Parts: sequence; C-alpha cells; structure tokens
Amino acid sequence: MVLFRRLLGEVLRTQRMRQGRTLRQVSADARVSLGYISEIERGQKEASSELLASICSALDVPLSEILSEVSDAVALEEAAMAVAIEDATALSTTSIPTAPVDGPRSGDVVASAA
Amino acid sequence: MVLFRRLLGEVLRTQRMRQGRTLRQVSADARVSLGYISEIERGQKEASSELLASICSALDVPLSEILSEVSDAVALEEAAMAVAIEDATALSTTSIPTAPVDGPRSGDVVASAA
Repeated sequence: MVLFRRLLGEVLRTQRMRQGRTLRQVSADARVSLGYISEIERGQKEASSELLASICSALDVPLSEILSEVSDAVALEEAAMAVAIEDATALSTTSIPTAPVDGPRSGDVVASAA
Repeated sequence: MVLFRRLLGEVLRTQRMRQGRTLRQVSADARVSLGYISEIERGQKEASSELLASICSALDVPLSEILSEVSDAVALEEAAMAVAIEDATALSTTSIPTAPVDGPRSGDVVASAA
C-alpha cells in the first residue's frame, strides 16, 4: 500500500533541504512544533490540511506544487509495485524446474564406474 | 487558505459520480463507514493515508491520479486567490476619489441664488 503521508514527508523534507533550511527554521516560520514537523517529514504523522498549508507557506512553495511532486513520487511507487506483483504472479504460475520430470535428480547416480 | 481536504473530497466525489456509484457502494468496497466517507467527500474530515488508499482502491483509481487531479484543482484556486489579492492591493493603493480634494463636497452649497 502506497501511503500518502510517507511520500508527502519525503517531498517536504527534500524541499526544505533544497533551500538549505533547518527543521527549526521551518518550524518557527510555520508555527508548528519542531517534534511535529519532524514526525511529518518522517511520514509518522498525518498533517492536517491547515498544517500542510502553513508548512507550504513557510517553505514558500505552492501547495499545488508539493501535491504534484507527491503525485509523481506515488506514481513511481505504484509502477514499482505493479512490476513486483507481475513478477510474483509470473513466479507462481510458471512451474519452476526444481527437479526435471524425466531427467536425473541431483544426487542420482547416472553412471558409475563402480 | 487552500485546504487539501476540501479539494480532495471534491475529486473523490467527482470520481465516484463519474462511475455512477453511490456512497453506500464505495463505503462497502472501501470498508469505511458511510458517515465517514460522506464527511471526507464534503471536506469535513481529514482522511488518513490508509483510508485514502482504501477509497482509491474501491474506486479503482490510482492514488497518483487522484493526487494529480487535486493538485490541478489546488492550482486553479491558488491562481484565483492570487488574482483576488492583486485586485485588493490595486484597490488599496489606488486613491479612490470619494470626494475631490479641491472641489466642492457633496452637500456643499457652491452657488446659491439665496
């Protein structure tokens, strides 16, 4: 399951670091506690819509841009998950030759000089 | 302030109605209570990331697509707000001629036959 809050946190952290700002600076500008904003960046807490607007304003980045970046990041994960599911399906439907039906098994003595 | 939950609710409702499905159907498929999903669509409750994933799955629309639509809707509101702020600034910086400085005021007797 792709979780919105995890990718939102990553996008917000990337934006902040791109601007060379500390958590403390953004927390002061957004009037959000340092602990809370840190949990949001790590995807551990959901940000309320009001809080998200405050953080965007503190970062001076439009909410639409943040959401567009999150959408792109989510799309990448969705694609990766689709490939993983396809691989798993292929593995479960393809018979894996652990032992050939008509051939010798590992450990069988095929020809022995003895 | 542009609130994420309000535009998310609008996008989710539009998607559901586009599919001709009732709140009851999506609520059953997403295993979310009818009241809760209805509040989310009306932008009155924040949806947790898990719940959002469930609703997207019930609607059979990728989360990335929902977020992209929300981003577009947010961008439109941001543009409209920017225009409104510009208009308000123009109004407050332009001197509005309520009474001409050197002319007669409304109610002044400029010339009287009396």
